[in-house]
Amino acid sequence: MSEQVKRTELNDLGEFALIDHLTRDFPLQNKSSVKGIGDDAAVINNGNFQTVVSTDLLVEGIHFDMAYVPLKHLGYKAVVVNLSDIYAMNAQPKQITVSLALSSRFSVEALEELYAGVRQACDYYKVDLVGGDTTSSLTGLLISVTAIGQGEADKLSYRSGASVGDILCMTGDLGGAYLGLQILEREKQIFLEHPGVQPELKGHDYIIGRQLKPEARYDAIEQFAKAELVPTSMIDISDGLASEVMHICKASGVGAYVEEGHVMIKPEVFQTALDFRLDPITCALSGGEDYELLLTVKPEDIEKVRFMNDIAIIGEIVDAKDGATLHTKGGNIHPLQAQGWKHF
Amino acid sequence: MSEQVKRTELNDLGEFALIDHLTRDFPLQNKSSVKGIGDDAAVINNGNFQTVVSTDLLVEGIHFDMAYVPLKHLGYKAVVVNLSDIYAMNAQPKQITVSLALSSRFSVEALEELYAGVRQACDYYKVDLVGGDTTSSLTGLLISVTAIGQGEADKLSYRSGASVGDILCMTGDLGGAYLGLQILEREKQIFLEHPGVQPELKGHDYIIGRQLKPEARYDAIEQFAKAELVPTSMIDISDGLASEVMHICKASGVGAYVEEGHVMIKPEVFQTALDFRLDPITCALSGGEDYELLLTVKPEDIEKVRFMNDIAIIGEIVDAKDGATLHTKGGNIHPLQAQGWKHF
Repeated sequence: MSEQVKRTELNDLGEFALIDHLTRDFPLQNKSSVKGIGDDAAVINNGNFQTVVSTDLLVEGIHFDMAYVPLKHLGYKAVVVNLSDIYAMNAQPKQITVSLALSSRFSVEALEELYAGVRQACDYYKVDLVGGDTTSSLTGLLISVTAIGQGEADKLSYRSGASVGDILCMTGDLGGAYLGLQILEREKQIFLEHPGVQPELKGHDYIIGRQLKPEARYDAIEQFAKAELVPTSMIDISDGLASEVMHICKASGVGAYVEEGHVMIKPEVFQTALDFRLDPITCALSGGEDYELLLTVKPEDIEKVRFMNDIAIIGEIVDAKDGATLHTKGGNIHPLQAQGWKHF
Repeated sequence: MSEQVKRTELNDLGEFALIDHLTRDFPLQNKSSVKGIGDDAAVINNGNFQTVVSTDLLVEGIHFDMAYVPLKHLGYKAVVVNLSDIYAMNAQPKQITVSLALSSRFSVEALEELYAGVRQACDYYKVDLVGGDTTSSLTGLLISVTAIGQGEADKLSYRSGASVGDILCMTGDLGGAYLGLQILEREKQIFLEHPGVQPELKGHDYIIGRQLKPEARYDAIEQFAKAELVPTSMIDISDGLASEVMHICKASGVGAYVEEGHVMIKPEVFQTALDFRLDPITCALSGGEDYELLLTVKPEDIEKVRFMNDIAIIGEIVDAKDGATLHTKGGNIHPLQAQGWKHF
């Protein structure tokens, strides 16, 4: 009889549970470690102000498909998704490191393209590339970016700061990045079956741009500073609105409702969802990769938010026992469900 | 006639030249960016003191072979190699982030083993795990670690600070990690050919330990602080002594000679090299992965160094025109040659 070794599959846990599980036993030892795992970024105390650190891996075949992602866009996006995490702390990104693992299938010229995109993001967001590592991989391309930012201790926004009665807000609009991916996937399939056919991307510039060249909402952070508004909690919307609302609820020990009719979805995103026979609100709730910000503000700050550009009030923080729910246009109440991703 | 697109292969450039090439066009924009690419770590000014950041990728099949690297050791080593970069700046590591890309071939239990090693390194070196990202890969395991440290502005040691007349020193001993790898590779081959045969690792504990569970020289940094010694330049010996001497020479605009007879090589490392028909000094010069420190001190500090534990004086900084050379035991002078790695 052979000895039984316990084996738990990765997808039995899922991404968030996996990280929680693996890092549950790491107590913080240094006084300067203000915030460890469990927010958009780690926070390190430096006396005068605080250093904010975020890191992400992008893997070919998992997060991007070289068939339709230009390398320059990929370099740009790899930086932006990390900057978005720093802004989501109400902090300013200042430095990045970029590490690559890549196979010999890539040429130096291809990497120059990738770095041209990194450079463009550095210029636009005024961050400095200060380090990195380059190594080979047996297959494909992997990009690891770490962003380092600065913020004032009493102005950082954690996921855990929301209180009952706070107003739930979002920047921009949702669902576009997900539908951009659907269009690119559809055209790739058509191309694979009929190599002569040119891709039909016309009229979808906005949606495809949301997928290939997302931007991080530095402008929202600037508006908050000007209005002397510190969000009580904030998170960037990388995995879909539902998942992010639930993150804030869990970290803050609260519930929340989202008014379906108030979630910002652009008309062309709405129409494209219908063309794909998808429910537009589902694309917004579960689509991901839009890199907008979800935040809560104190009720007395509601007038400040009303006058801000490109920010919508979409719901309210409620008691934990009421859970996280969607109030539909039809007057029904559904529990929010986080899809997140399940890559394993 | 088809259009010619220029294609330069990655191995036409090599690792160091590739990084230099790709990052040559990234001017630093933020005042807080004290040091960007080109040292063991980036340096960020925080007023009171400086934040030091280093990042590394470890790729399965390139940097480690799961056939003989236990996951716990791998987690430990992935942390240590980054801490070594922080110590090489004469700074104290405080936080780390650990990101993983892995295929579904790994179980949750396997990852627990890996994190047990990360945890052990965090405990031993008193650093906090504060972030990371976990994602899937199509093949194998990739670990990306970023270490964040603190140092006083006037006590950091850059690669660029060596002056003619400075004394060249190293901690510990070299060549062990490389020979440890040779032993593990040999036993793997024997096992593949004769699956019944048990590996012959007896008597090689030190050498195999150097490969599987290296340590970073925090104790050397402590000695420097106690002796009020600030190395004029410092680098960790990750790619072999020759490569690191040349990095200091290039960054400082100087030359250097190394006395072959003064380079520390343990008797059992020496003997194992001979058993493999390898030249022991070549293992020290080009072997890599020992994670000792190479440093220079002012001539007037030589007495401080003489009384330190486990530090050897191995040469001197000379004029750039004299280049980087090895003075052999036989009285000959050879130019040092950096092998570094060429993974592509």
